[in-house]
Amino acid sequence: MIESISKVVVRYSETDMMGIVYHANYLPWLEIGRTQMLREHGVPYSEMEAQGILLPVLEISMKYRRPARYDEEITIITRMHQKPFVKIHLDYEVKKGDELLATAKSMHAFMNRSAQPIKTPRYFLDAISQKFA
Amino acid sequence: MIESISKVVVRYSETDMMGIVYHANYLPWLEIGRTQMLREHGVPYSEMEAQGILLPVLEISMKYRRPARYDEEITIITRMHQKPFVKIHLDYEVKKGDELLATAKSMHAFMNRSAQPIKTPRYFLDAISQKFA
Amino acid sequence: MIESISKVVVRYSETDMMGIVYHANYLPWLEIGRTQMLREHGVPYSEMEAQGILLPVLEISMKYRRPARYDEEITIITRMHQKPFVKIHLDYEVKKGDELLATAKSMHAFMNRSAQPIKTPRYFLDAISQKFA
Amino acid sequence: MIESISKVVVRYSETDMMGIVYHANYLPWLEIGRTQMLREHGVPYSEMEAQGILLPVLEISMKYRRPARYDEEITIITRMHQKPFVKIHLDYEVKKGDELLATAKSMHAFMNRSAQPIKTPRYFLDAISQKFA
Repeated sequence: MIESISKVVVRYSETDMMGIVYHANYLPWLEIGRTQMLREHGVPYSEMEAQGILLPVLEISMKYRRPARYDEEITIITRMHQKPFVKIHLDYEVKKGDELLATAKSMHAFMNRSAQPIKTPRYFLDAISQKFA
Repeated sequence: MIESISKVVVRYSETDMMGIVYHANYLPWLEIGRTQMLREHGVPYSEMEAQGILLPVLEISMKYRRPARYDEEITIITRMHQKPFVKIHLDYEVKKGDELLATAKSMHAFMNRSAQPIKTPRYFLDAISQKFA
Repeated sequence: MIESISKVVVRYSETDMMGIVYHANYLPWLEIGRTQMLREHGVPYSEMEAQGILLPVLEISMKYRRPARYDEEITIITRMHQKPFVKIHLDYEVKKGDELLATAKSMHAFMNRSAQPIKTPRYFLDAISQKFA
Repeated sequence: MIESISKVVVRYSETDMMGIVYHANYLPWLEIGRTQMLREHGVPYSEMEAQGILLPVLEISMKYRRPARYDEEITIITRMHQKPFVKIHLDYEVKKGDELLATAKSMHAFMNRSAQPIKTPRYFLDAISQKFA
């Protein structure tokens, strides 16, 4: 299993008139978690895209338990439980300290610039394979 | 069943560097669909919130099939299949003309300003009950 | 002078915890105003970009007089007072009915995909020149 | 003069189809700069708002020189040149390393929850006055 931990501080722009973080604004936090996970394994997503390898979101689901509020420090825990074959499955926990605010899952597939599915890049598998030995 | 149809035109601000609509930016479209559905049944969400009745998103899930792009006209079809009891379940189709771009589900519950669950308001049930006769 | 009028309805996602539209969320409305102005003159911005002609924002300024709120219908009036030479200057009024909520100015220049300044496209000048006779 | 320095890493969600950060998405960065400045002087904005003291944006202007891109580390330098009287004036530099990407100015005034102007809070003046001796 691969696990990666990211931190964000809630921005004023992320709140809504309910006084809490707008539900859609959690999704960029998950992306920060994914970005961090890839960076930690030596395969920065910015470099992958520069090479024409895209990793779009195909499915996402999220359960909101407790609200996040302005200026709170939020932890995003991103986990890859299975070595990816064609699809990449990720799980997330969004926490404030020890308190679980939300959980999420996302599913991705590698594509080229023409939106055609491509095989999981060799260097990506190499980078993460030791974690799934 | 209740069904409501909304239209949006993709904003430049909704695109990302992949050249398509960023996945999180579909979620406000679903909210537009919900807002439209409530308005059409005589229970505008803006009035509900003014009375202290909130309808936050508790769960959301989305499957992305084809990308939406800048300046395209997008149709959001919002459906309530079951008469709500404690939770409200909604389904969505996001289309460009006849082409299905994405599907989604959301789950909500009525709450007061203190984030305590409350019963589904009587006038809300009255407004929609004839559709589930 | 060229003038173009656009309408938006305030989205829940555009509000913040102050209960009003977050100040940065007016800027995409101005872009909607620009997009509408170009479309009305037969030079849709989506087609310009498809041809590699970009019109980025170089400067923007905004004065906020009164807040906009969720579900209100907002009118954006976009005006081009001068026939563009190298730079394009636009003025905006953001209104709710007759009430002026905000004013803004933006400055743009045509660029190619390499972010090099280019001359104002001939067909763009042709499209708007009759308004500045 | 008061000066405060903040860092952000560009999020994927902040980019647009031009491949760069969408111009409106710099504005939340400026807010991060303001939030940081207030926190460093012992007057966290989250506490001010909890006490019913708001500091909305009345005017903002921004000049864009060079684009910011996904995953770049961005520095926001926020400066208050004058001791505030009724209005607060702030200047900003947005940089990537030593490279200046954008400059901005904002103007604010203290208000209560009813959007009535109020005097600059005593504890705010006390917190910053030593910097303007």
